[in-house]
Amino acid sequence: MTTAIGYAAPAADQPLTYFEFQRRPLTATDVEIEIAYCGVCHSDLHQARNEWGGTVFPCVPGHEIVGHVIAVGAQVHQFKVGDTVGVGCMVDSCRTCPSCEAGQEQYCDSGFVGTYNGADKHSGGVTYGGYSNRIVVDQAFVLRVDPSLPLAGVAPLLCAGITTYSPLRHWGVTHGHRVGVVGLGGLGHMALKLAKAMGAEVVLFTTSASKQADAKRLGADHVVISSDAEQMKAWRNSLDFILNTVAAPHDLDAYLNLLRLNGTMTLVGIPAEAHPSPSAYQLIAKRRSLAGSLIGGIAETQEMLDFCAQHGITADIEMIAMDAINEAFERMLKSDVKYRFVIDMTTLKQK
Amino acid sequence: MTTAIGYAAPAADQPLTYFEFQRRPLTATDVEIEIAYCGVCHSDLHQARNEWGGTVFPCVPGHEIVGHVIAVGAQVHQFKVGDTVGVGCMVDSCRTCPSCEAGQEQYCDSGFVGTYNGADKHSGGVTYGGYSNRIVVDQAFVLRVDPSLPLAGVAPLLCAGITTYSPLRHWGVTHGHRVGVVGLGGLGHMALKLAKAMGAEVVLFTTSASKQADAKRLGADHVVISSDAEQMKAWRNSLDFILNTVAAPHDLDAYLNLLRLNGTMTLVGIPAEAHPSPSAYQLIAKRRSLAGSLIGGIAETQEMLDFCAQHGITADIEMIAMDAINEAFERMLKSDVKYRFVIDMTTLKQK
Repeated sequence: MTTAIGYAAPAADQPLTYFEFQRRPLTATDVEIEIAYCGVCHSDLHQARNEWGGTVFPCVPGHEIVGHVIAVGAQVHQFKVGDTVGVGCMVDSCRTCPSCEAGQEQYCDSGFVGTYNGADKHSGGVTYGGYSNRIVVDQAFVLRVDPSLPLAGVAPLLCAGITTYSPLRHWGVTHGHRVGVVGLGGLGHMALKLAKAMGAEVVLFTTSASKQADAKRLGADHVVISSDAEQMKAWRNSLDFILNTVAAPHDLDAYLNLLRLNGTMTLVGIPAEAHPSPSAYQLIAKRRSLAGSLIGGIAETQEMLDFCAQHGITADIEMIAMDAINEAFERMLKSDVKYRFVIDMTTLKQK
Repeated sequence: MTTAIGYAAPAADQPLTYFEFQRRPLTATDVEIEIAYCGVCHSDLHQARNEWGGTVFPCVPGHEIVGHVIAVGAQVHQFKVGDTVGVGCMVDSCRTCPSCEAGQEQYCDSGFVGTYNGADKHSGGVTYGGYSNRIVVDQAFVLRVDPSLPLAGVAPLLCAGITTYSPLRHWGVTHGHRVGVVGLGGLGHMALKLAKAMGAEVVLFTTSASKQADAKRLGADHVVISSDAEQMKAWRNSLDFILNTVAAPHDLDAYLNLLRLNGTMTLVGIPAEAHPSPSAYQLIAKRRSLAGSLIGGIAETQEMLDFCAQHGITADIEMIAMDAINEAFERMLKSDVKYRFVIDMTTLKQK
């Protein structure tokens, strides 16, 4: 066993605080990683506060993990000590169901093992995430990171990056396509960079006129203020695909009717209360689809990391110390971050 | 001009009654058809009663038309007098937009010209539908019907048939697929026959236990009573595609969670009030899609008619006389028809 240190929520209504715990002993196929940076995802807050139910406390959040290999099991040949690696939202899955066999472990029929608040097959306990100095993960769920990229900005690729990359790829976004991105937060800002790098003409929809310049810098060709009915009308029947990153309940029809014939709008956020019902007419009139997408598979996550290395893409981040996490949660609730908090794990010290 | 006779709604709140009117003079590309049978679609009732708004009165409904060619314009070479033909929901479109050029006139950017209550480009007036003894239609919107099929049962193929055939084809239903059909009415009974003929394993979902035997005769391999939660649960994550023919507002999640990874449920009915909002979670958890589909293009309608001839498929109908149309509307409202009323036009006499 390895003693690890981190920050945990002791209960749903308490701030995160310093926590010591055990990582499982290295199995033959395990990789032990010293965590350099961990991104702060909205899911971390939801789970730390038990907003989705089912959180086991104490809960160590964090699933946007990058760092370096410090030990490997006897059967690990893909990674060696010193390698720069990443870990995302999953640390295991059944590996035998059709989804797993197709490399889509995120849709595992038994449910994947989450990087935190999951059921650890080896320890029998709960999994603890990346708000920590080190982690032990099976090699099949460890990603290779190009050491030439600024490492802190890579961390958010492991969740925000793959969650937007996967649907853009699945729905075939490429040169000549016109793609809408709804919302400019952690996911939205990655969607702009990725869709642009895939060759699409990118239209950002935001309620905040103040985000215009930033959106263009991040890859948007056009910025539309979604509260302006006239601006919205000008884009009717013109988009091939829309990636909707907004989890707050909102009028989906306002976007569905911007899609061309056979266009799809894909949701990646789960609202606490349902969106207003989309109109069957808007779907039928142009054979449109409303879809959903969940993170991405391990092989696809590696493909995304390689794509980002090739295109020099990382997240725009604001670095914080570990002990600033509770303040960061509050600021995240107000969307006061451009565009992802990342914890510098050198600030986490043994007490 | 040709004087035609038919049945029209004089106003939204009045029953259909005998009506004489003019068909436009035959243009060089027109085909004049003596109508043998016309199917009775729920849209006919909606429009006759102005339930969708915009109905021009008097309104002659009917867009499931079969009959024989009695005259052709000078430039008509595809059809000759005596040919058995059909006309569906459309009699014209812009013919130049990308949808029309792709043979998907139903999604014409300018809106297709409806067989009734449409804007006739030649006469400048409104189009009158198939509750009539004859009709004049441009050859590009006339379909060839195999004379070996029982003609009255072909009529409903022109709307109910193509509306179900098109999405089954578009979403690639074929051998080895498991397909759900929701609802057993005019559309649902065609969906059963067509999906079965395409080689799929077909599951019918209905609220009526009494429809079980009929559903199996029509092509269902399994019949599920949708109000029985235990029965529904047994089909979770098991269907590749669902064609939902029910226009009454209902819980879409109950069906979405029956779809496998990447599965799609397609709506073909527009409810008067919105369905309860589908859950973003149900879409995201298995990358599912909720889509819509509108009738089908002209080339695809011909393909469907040829497919039906090849497989000996026609609609199950109840034949009525023209003067029974108002009673038929009332029975249709109670779903008291197996499975489509068809008007025998020999019962329509000049007064």
